[in-house]
Amino acid sequence: MTPQTFTARATAETETRVNVQLRDFTLTIDEPVALGGSDQGPNPVEFVLAAVMGCMNVVVHLVAKERGVRIRSLEATARGSLDPARFMGRPTQERTGFTEIEVGLDIDSDASSEELEEIIRVAEERCPVSDNLSHPTPVRIRLTSGR
Amino acid sequence: MTPQTFTARATAETETRVNVQLRDFTLTIDEPVALGGSDQGPNPVEFVLAAVMGCMNVVVHLVAKERGVRIRSLEATARGSLDPARFMGRPTQERTGFTEIEVGLDIDSDASSEELEEIIRVAEERCPVSDNLSHPTPVRIRLTSGR
Repeated sequence: MTPQTFTARATAETETRVNVQLRDFTLTIDEPVALGGSDQGPNPVEFVLAAVMGCMNVVVHLVAKERGVRIRSLEATARGSLDPARFMGRPTQERTGFTEIEVGLDIDSDASSEELEEIIRVAEERCPVSDNLSHPTPVRIRLTSGR
Repeated sequence: MTPQTFTARATAETETRVNVQLRDFTLTIDEPVALGGSDQGPNPVEFVLAAVMGCMNVVVHLVAKERGVRIRSLEATARGSLDPARFMGRPTQERTGFTEIEVGLDIDSDASSEELEEIIRVAEERCPVSDNLSHPTPVRIRLTSGR
């Protein structure tokens, strides 16, 4: 199918805070005070957790609808842990990002647990965000200014 | 170092929209009307772009400070393309997420381009979000309810 392209733009307000422009929406990302920020918004890794849950909501509903399963309500929790050593520049063998991301889905539906689990399995394979996290995605970062 | 754990909670408002609770912050994720949503917020993959830029802002400033480089301003752009076929359940060999993510950083500083490029290279290695995207991160999604 025709590829869909998404773009975003960010302006640093401080060393930890950016305002991000996404189409007509503006979001603020910051760090908590304990991590050196001014706590004006969620931090970058919290945005990752939000993205996974937002994506799974869409795709679970999509797959359920395809199968004639009605979902009355869906609530999600997400959790990730990371070792801040590499982020802080300390010598370590640990990765800097989440070691894993756990998502729990609380779904109210007449479908059986087995059917819901199958819907979740298929949805995870079709969710762009879980794909980008669970499989390598090249991130190409370059300087677009300078002297 | 002691692992840091981040958590989030989401409640589906519609088939495409969630309200996400991150500490004291509430964000809305939705899909554009063209993708079946009600366009009340950025969509999940846009959140991924925001997360990368927010993370790079923090780590670029951190690495620059370690090196005595002052950054006067930083602006970022991010772009990703994806093939919606798998997401929509069509037969395809393409992955469902972004094939790659491109980030451009416009940095105003007295440092040379070479020095800024080295700062970006080190920052990318220390940025949790780019790590979670560029290297496999297990995403474990399970049903926490059901009958």
